[in-house]
Parts: sequence; C-alpha cells; structure tokens
Amino acid sequence: MWDEQCLDGTEKEKSHPLYFFSYHFPLPASFFRFIMSLSLVSIVSQTTLAELGRASNTRKIFEESNQRRQTHGSDVCDFSLGNSVVSPPQAFREALQQISLDPPSNVHSYLPTTGLPQLRENIAKCLTKWHNVEISKDCVLMACGASAAINIVLHTILPADSEVIIPTPCFGEYIRYVENMRCKVVLVPCLPNYELDVEAIRAAINDKTRVILLNNPNNPTGKVYSQKTLVDLSKVLMDVFEHRKETTPDNPSPVFLLSDEIYRLIHYDQSTPIFSTFAAYPYSFLVSSFAKDFALPGERIGYICISPALVDQCLIDALSSSTRVLGYVGCPSMMQHVLCKCLENGFDYAPVLAEYRKRRDRLHAILLDAGLQCPLPEAAVYLFPKVPEGVTDKEFADLLRAQNVFVVPGSSFLDPTSVRLAFCVDMDVIEKSAPKIKLATQQARAHHN
Amino acid sequence: MWDEQCLDGTEKEKSHPLYFFSYHFPLPASFFRFIMSLSLVSIVSQTTLAELGRASNTRKIFEESNQRRQTHGSDVCDFSLGNSVVSPPQAFREALQQISLDPPSNVHSYLPTTGLPQLRENIAKCLTKWHNVEISKDCVLMACGASAAINIVLHTILPADSEVIIPTPCFGEYIRYVENMRCKVVLVPCLPNYELDVEAIRAAINDKTRVILLNNPNNPTGKVYSQKTLVDLSKVLMDVFEHRKETTPDNPSPVFLLSDEIYRLIHYDQSTPIFSTFAAYPYSFLVSSFAKDFALPGERIGYICISPALVDQCLIDALSSSTRVLGYVGCPSMMQHVLCKCLENGFDYAPVLAEYRKRRDRLHAILLDAGLQCPLPEAAVYLFPKVPEGVTDKEFADLLRAQNVFVVPGSSFLDPTSVRLAFCVDMDVIEKSAPKIKLATQQARAHHN
Repeated sequence: MWDEQCLDGTEKEKSHPLYFFSYHFPLPASFFRFIMSLSLVSIVSQTTLAELGRASNTRKIFEESNQRRQTHGSDVCDFSLGNSVVSPPQAFREALQQISLDPPSNVHSYLPTTGLPQLRENIAKCLTKWHNVEISKDCVLMACGASAAINIVLHTILPADSEVIIPTPCFGEYIRYVENMRCKVVLVPCLPNYELDVEAIRAAINDKTRVILLNNPNNPTGKVYSQKTLVDLSKVLMDVFEHRKETTPDNPSPVFLLSDEIYRLIHYDQSTPIFSTFAAYPYSFLVSSFAKDFALPGERIGYICISPALVDQCLIDALSSSTRVLGYVGCPSMMQHVLCKCLENGFDYAPVLAEYRKRRDRLHAILLDAGLQCPLPEAAVYLFPKVPEGVTDKEFADLLRAQNVFVVPGSSFLDPTSVRLAFCVDMDVIEKSAPKIKLATQQARAHHN
Repeated sequence: MWDEQCLDGTEKEKSHPLYFFSYHFPLPASFFRFIMSLSLVSIVSQTTLAELGRASNTRKIFEESNQRRQTHGSDVCDFSLGNSVVSPPQAFREALQQISLDPPSNVHSYLPTTGLPQLRENIAKCLTKWHNVEISKDCVLMACGASAAINIVLHTILPADSEVIIPTPCFGEYIRYVENMRCKVVLVPCLPNYELDVEAIRAAINDKTRVILLNNPNNPTGKVYSQKTLVDLSKVLMDVFEHRKETTPDNPSPVFLLSDEIYRLIHYDQSTPIFSTFAAYPYSFLVSSFAKDFALPGERIGYICISPALVDQCLIDALSSSTRVLGYVGCPSMMQHVLCKCLENGFDYAPVLAEYRKRRDRLHAILLDAGLQCPLPEAAVYLFPKVPEGVTDKEFADLLRAQNVFVVPGSSFLDPTSVRLAFCVDMDVIEKSAPKIKLATQQARAHHN
C-alpha cells in the first residue's frame, strides 16, 4: 500500500536517516513502518549469514587490537596479521617514484586481462631462476592478489561437487573459497614435523578429488616441503591418474596440485632451495604475489603460473574468462608498471631477508625463554608455538590478550594445539612482548596445576 | 604405471616444455604420454568452458585492435573499450606524487576490509552532496573496483535460485555475475528512448525476484533515468513489498535496487541533476568507482554505498565477509591513500568534463554526417548509433573493422539494433574515423539495396 501522507517532522523522526528523504521528497510515512519491520534475515542471504559465523578470526583480532591501541597505546603487541613493517626492496621504492613523477601515458588504463606483457615476461624470468625450470611469459597471468589467483584457478578447473584436499595446518580462508564454489573440502593433517602426510593424502583421494591445495612455504608453520615429499606425492598422483585412465578412459582427469607460494623469497636456509612443484609434477598451478615477499600486502598484486607442461591458449583464455566472471577484471595497472620496472632494474633481497631473520630469531628466543615449545620456521613470517598443557588455544590467546599481546588461536588454521604469532612487526614490539608472554605462559601453567 | 625409464633426448623431445624437467630431474617418459593424451576437457570445468563461449566481446575486440595496430599503426581507430585518454583531475596527480615521495608508514599495508576510514568519510561527504541525502561513513565500504562491489552485494543478498531483473541494453558481464551465483537473470528491454519500462519490470517480478540491477547513467546508451521513472519504479517495488508482507508475513523480503553509478560525474547536462536512488527507494545499494569518473579504469578502486535507511553493523559485517569469501580481500592500499588526499584537497571536474564533451559532440556530428541515427547521450563516454537498415550489428561492425574502425556490436549489450563507440580516445582518432565511418555506412546501405 502506497499512501501519500507525509511525515510530520517530530524530533524522533528527524533523527532517523530516512527523515532527510522524507523532508526533501514526497515519501510516505509507511516507509518508516516498512523499515522498522525489516529484519536482517530479509536482507542477508542464509549462505552469507552462515559464512558470517565463520568469518576470519585473524581479521577480528586485528581490528580488536587496533581498538585496544587507542586506549593502551604502545603497550599493545599485535602479532595477529602479516602486515609487515619491513620495507619493500629499495628498488621498488625507486621504481614507484620514477613512475609517479614521469608516468607512462597509459599508466592507469585497462591492461589486457592477463596483465602487462613485459611484467609477465619479467616474472617468468624470475620464476625460471627460482624454479630451475624454463617458464615462458605465456605461463604467467597477473591476478588481483594471490587470493584472487587461487579463486580464478579453482573456478576454472573445479567441476561442481568435486573435492579439494587441503593439508592442515592451513590458511583458514582456503576452506571458504572452496565451499563458495560448492565443492567439498577434505582436510588432511600433516605429520608432527609439519611435512605432508603423503600416505594420508593417498587415502583421502577418491573419484571426486580434483585439486590438492598446498601452501609452500606454509602459513602458519613456516614449513618448506622437502623434495622427497613432493616427489612422493607426485608418484601417488601419477598412479591415481593412471588408474583413472583405466577406469574412465573417455575423460580421465588428473588430480591437480595448486601451490600457493607467496612466502617463497622469505626463506632463511638458502642452502636448501625450495623444490619446484613444476619439477615434481606436471599437472600443477602455482599462485603467488608480491604481498609478502615485497611487503606490499595491501596492493593486490598477484599472479598465476601455469605449469609449462600444461600451458595452452585455451587454458589461458579460460583463466582470463574466470578473472572476469568473478569480477576481478585485472590486477591494478600502475602497480604492474612499477613492479615491471623494479624487476627490470633488479632488486637486492638480502636486506629484507635479514630484517625478517632478526625478528624471527629474537621472538623465537623469547618464546623458548617463556618455556614454550616452538619449532624454528624455515620460511615465512610466523612462529607457531605449542599451547601450554591444560589450556586450549583460545584460552591461551585470551591470557595473552589480557597482557595486550594479540595472537591468533591455531584453530583458525585447523590446528588447535598451537597459536600463531606474525613477527613482521617493529623490533621494540617484540622486545616489549617478552615479559608479557612469560607472564601469560606462567598463568596458563598455574591454571593447569 | 610409474616407470623409471628416462627420456632419450631426441630433438623432438627437446622441443617439448617437459624436456627441461626430464633432463634435470629423474622424470619418466610416461609423463609425455600422459600429457599428450590430456584434452582440455579434463583440465577446464564444463561450467568454465560454457562461460568461455560467451566471453566478453569487448575485450576480444580490444585485443584484436591492439594487434591490428602493430600492422596498421595509427590508421587504427579503436572505439572498443572505455580506456580513457582523458587525464584524471589534476588534484589526483598531485596527491599521487605527494604520496610516492613521502609515503605514510603504512601505505602498502593491509587496511581494514571496509577500507581506509578517512577515505570512506571523504567519499560519504561527496555522496551526500551529489545525492542531496545525508550519507555517513558507515554506509561506504571500499571494494576492489565496481565489478567487485556488484559481486559482493549480490553474494551477500541473493539467496540460491533467486532472480535478478536487468533492464537492457546493459553491460553484458552483469549477466555472468548473476549466473555465477546460480541465480536467474530476467532481461527487460527499456523503452525506445532508453528509459526504464516500469510496467514491463512490474510484469517481470515474481516471488523469486530479489534484485533489480540498474546502471545509471547507462552503458551503452548514456541514458540518465528521470526522477519520475525512479519514483514510479519505487512505487511498484513498495507495492510488491506490501504484497509480500501479506503473503509471507514471517520473512518478507523487499526487491532491492542495486544501482551501478560509475559514470555519475560524466554528466553533460548539469542543469538536471541525476536523481538519487536513495531518495527514490530505501532498499537500495549503490556501487561506484573512480575508474570512469577519474579515468583510472585499471586501478580497481571502487566502493559500495548502502542506503542510509538500511545500514547497520551486521550488514556491514556481512558485506565484509563476502569481500573475503570471494577472494577480493580489499581495495588497493596506496591508491586509497592517494584518493583520500585528493578528495580532501578537493578537485575541479570541469576540465575533465569539457574534454569528454568535446569528444562526444565531435563523434556525434561525425555519426550524423555519415547518415546514422544516434541519440546524443546525456552522460558517460559512449555513443550508441542505430545500425543501418538491412545489416546486423555484427555485419556493420565487420564493415567498420575492414576500415580499421573497431566498435562493439550491440548484441554484447543485449541490443542488436545498435553498435557502441567509446569516445574517450584521442581527438585525432575521432577526426580520422570520419571518412571511414561514412564509407562503411555507405557500404552497409549498398549491401541492403
């Protein structure tokens, strides 16, 4: 029912956001009644409401620690988010200034969906060096961050109702990406040393398995999978494919490896190179970005690399199509120009790595000194200490938070035996945390006894 | 079957991308056989293969014209893509240089998922002025481009199997976004003057209708919907909601208006302001970006604005959650800082608008001179002339392409009676196109006679 009776402008009405409309336009009083009666359920879909209940813990903790900082200032030690204070390589800053002062004419324009050709070429050269595998420009497609890259690959290769195996501990949002594609996640815990449990993965594979989603080096454990592990996994997957060719000869599909390698450069033991997924297994896709390696987490500058054994024009077209269907459109233009120049000029990563190593070593020592059990990570920017006996990960995180130390409970990474600390923070935050972490650990022990 | 027999390194094998692996790592010859037997169908999902067949024509034409330019150089007149040559407002360039030379410490960091608070505040102030409706910071959420913004809103409010009404002509990728959410698109043609056909929309609404997706000003027609049209539409939708409240009192849902307003500033007749969707109808969402207005199409810097009548924290949380589930994570950080500063300093849009107007008027005159029928658009950067009688839109586009003039057939916008020309190109491209367009139009007529 539409009635033309206007509001009469009481103070209560004036404070309502709709009053403004009502005052300026001939809107009826019934608007008010409609809106007052509208519950959230009639706005937000059931699926999104369900997702909301499982929203990223890490982000919530980050936002809480931001609030705490307003009242407790510099006493807050926020180890929640991988929001690095370490500077990008100097060559990046120089390239950014050059582009800003003397921008190419098309610097903010749409680029081809696959990205700036010269940047793809430059990334392919880096990857060829890092992987010791020949990778051409055609294998590399720019994407709006590694999360976008993962979603684009999954959308392209996952049939409806297929299954994706994810080894745990893992980045929790992987699960939401897969479920949003209406596919099923199968979690397979790693071995106690955080290596992949290849036998358990073999046991989890069935006819519907289409992708194994790895994170190498791993968030939150900092583990780098060994050559032996990846070759063993490859053998299992080749066997599976052989078997499928016998049982479904018309349309056999391999199980694809999708390897998220956003921490590849932050690798402390340079004497043992990270073994290449491409070298291990031909049916593989890699995704990465400059978010972590270059400390540009907010810039949404990622890429997909197709295994050189798989790449062809139709696959590239399919990935480009997914980039558009999913609404990503492309990767930010100016930043593509900046990184293109930066890679062209070359960059020195040693100073960046030294900054991270210093933080890792110091925070690791603090955790051991507090009596916590914590492996020294080979890579990435996280420490993943075991929770003291007798408290849960959430209880331990609460005890730490009471000391203004913010960490993420391991259950966010599907491993409640530990908590995660991102150590890419100011050194003085790390120093300041030492007595707080010790105290919270003592409290956890006292709680147990 | 896994065998350990290595390749023997013939020249043919050496030319295969896998040869490199095989040479450096103990990979078996059976790899070759596997890969040779792998068809695309076993890589790309059926859904993506189907999407691929309907991929954006505009992008394909853009990429073809890029190739043609390599052989025909400056003879190519590319009107395919809205890739503006007009410069962003001067205030933007200044802000970019300031931020690059003296970056805030967190300039590349993760920001809150909703965006930089001060930028949200500054955008809210602009929107309040443009809409003549009080809009608070809380209504504004940053998104990685307007396409991301549309997908985030749709993901948040569309239940499975619901329906979305889209008036045509429209931006073709809207359809792919909705279908990717497993919902149904209902196309409703506009009136001959490109106003919304409110009665036809009323007739298309059923119990499953959840969203009407508008583009105001419209791509490709340049139409700005009148106040009368929007108020009439609002009345229809309020009636629908009243009816639903009677028939499904437990959980009545309104039909939401989702208005894509990325061309709002490129509006030539400033004497008639664009009527605000928020003023017309409370159950509405607006999406926009700086892509078109500020000529930054490649930068992925968009936003959602929730109707002030609808905004609440749980809805904001739901939209943030969708931002993460869909893998967007957020809007690029540095560009948020740059635009924040630019809006703070204020910007003069008149010079930008003058550049567009000059191009619109000149290309419009050229089309009329060629004998084409073409309304003068009120807004945006496109001309949408009728195809000459007796040829299809694709045939006319082909005739133009033979003259090195690239346009997009109207069927890409669900209206095959016209073709679209994006006029945000260099003036000399527009001048150069005059005899070519005239010739192609004569050929089309000759073809008919």
